[in-house]
Amino acid sequence: MALAKAITLVENRKKDYKNLLEGIYPLTGKALKIGITGSPGSGKSSLIEKMIAGLKAQGLPIAVLAVDPSSPLTGGALLGDRLRMIQHSNDANVFIRSIANRGHLGGLSLSTHEIVDLLQASGKEIIIIETVGVGQSEVDIINVADVVLMVLNPDSGDEIQIFKAGIIEIADIFVINKSDLGGSDNKIGEIRNYFATTAKPPQIFATSVKENKGISELLAGIKQFQQEESGRIDEKRANIKRNYVEKIVAERFREEMRLDSGIADMLQTAAAANPFQLADRIVQKLKTGGIHDKKN
Amino acid sequence: MALAKAITLVENRKKDYKNLLEGIYPLTGKALKIGITGSPGSGKSSLIEKMIAGLKAQGLPIAVLAVDPSSPLTGGALLGDRLRMIQHSNDANVFIRSIANRGHLGGLSLSTHEIVDLLQASGKEIIIIETVGVGQSEVDIINVADVVLMVLNPDSGDEIQIFKAGIIEIADIFVINKSDLGGSDNKIGEIRNYFATTAKPPQIFATSVKENKGISELLAGIKQFQQEESGRIDEKRANIKRNYVEKIVAERFREEMRLDSGIADMLQTAAAANPFQLADRIVQKLKTGGIHDKKN
Repeated sequence: MALAKAITLVENRKKDYKNLLEGIYPLTGKALKIGITGSPGSGKSSLIEKMIAGLKAQGLPIAVLAVDPSSPLTGGALLGDRLRMIQHSNDANVFIRSIANRGHLGGLSLSTHEIVDLLQASGKEIIIIETVGVGQSEVDIINVADVVLMVLNPDSGDEIQIFKAGIIEIADIFVINKSDLGGSDNKIGEIRNYFATTAKPPQIFATSVKENKGISELLAGIKQFQQEESGRIDEKRANIKRNYVEKIVAERFREEMRLDSGIADMLQTAAAANPFQLADRIVQKLKTGGIHDKKN
Repeated sequence: MALAKAITLVENRKKDYKNLLEGIYPLTGKALKIGITGSPGSGKSSLIEKMIAGLKAQGLPIAVLAVDPSSPLTGGALLGDRLRMIQHSNDANVFIRSIANRGHLGGLSLSTHEIVDLLQASGKEIIIIETVGVGQSEVDIINVADVVLMVLNPDSGDEIQIFKAGIIEIADIFVINKSDLGGSDNKIGEIRNYFATTAKPPQIFATSVKENKGISELLAGIKQFQQEESGRIDEKRANIKRNYVEKIVAERFREEMRLDSGIADMLQTAAAANPFQLADRIVQKLKTGGIHDKKN
């Protein structure tokens, strides 16, 4: 309950959210963050349900964060809705939360990172971050996850083309889900082929939620990645942190822009102004009169 | 040719790109910007091909910008590849270009806006901006387009759920493409129903590229929107410009962060640092020692 409240406070940028984040910071950094991406309909939510069952058997406190890029306008939460229906949602050891991309510049990844930190601080040892679609949201997963799973289906045709265009490269582990449909070997072959010249090709697993197959192998594969690629995970975490610091800096300036009534007035004139000159004036104003300027 | 070179210069942030953008600014603001979004496979590219044919008949210089969110890592350009295959690509009056989302914080919309400005300055009167997928990229279209078209298909099932979660609300005009498949009336009914309580519901058109139906009606609908909703377009343009100024400000600080070797050194220590204290120190450094600080 306290965790859910803390997340809402941070998401809504309520008073003291910064103190809260700074306060819990020493408690972060320990959990394994598993990012899961794949197109809608690839069966990510039910796969996660099975993964949770396996992880619970290991006695690990788990959190699932569904990052839903569906809407910046209404803050849709389709993934979360789907997840809430699954069997573990009443389990005290499994915390499930969905967050929406609010279309805020850089907002998705900043608050995702923050919520992951709150989950870590509350003692969750495994944090699963699920996202959907094609585009920026997958990429944001790089900015929080230690290991990224890409979920495909044996019969996925169109999306493999899209994945090949680059998103495929963020994946550490491939999962051919719905393997009961048949044809996973072909898909595995395609992926192997794509990585034929890669020194360390990613692991590939075939899973079936329906037939309850391949899930324990997948969990073992994740554990193996965690153990054998700890250098790579450390490197990822250093990048994630650098990125986080840059985003905090950007947000501080954005916040100053919002809070500075002089700048708000300047922005009101934007329609008629030369945007470059106006930007210059705002930069100067932020540098000389900002609320974070300790000299004042 | 000069236009293509100018776009590359701006996209790659080559020396003098800022002077170029500032120089062409007085020539911008006149074109009609049409944003087109919809899921992969909804037939956007072939619809655009037909729209171009209709617009060319009116003697208008046209540009198509395909914003491809596929990859920040390799900069995939699927939409552009598809567009380049269409018949107008050798036509001097039709300029086609694809740009990739490089995963740069705010980068997509900033450079999209800039390229739209270059196209306007070069005399293009109609600029079509195409994007694909579900998520941030649709939303970025709001940050450049005067009118947003949402392309659906009569048989689209899963995506309507996603669209309903909020993306639907950015659309000014709905297009039920592939109407030859049958069932467009149902889809039109669903959309009407969704907007039943809206004071000014969006226009809806059924189109078929295969049967060459509904395209001229769609073009007339866009023209009607341009004429009857000029107040709304002005309001959109004011928001777009405010947003653009805010992004220029954010980019100037990011640029300073990149160029300041002291900050680069500070970021190198991020893995071991408290991110909030480090961000504070960087904010201070940007305020006192930044390259844009005219006092120095």
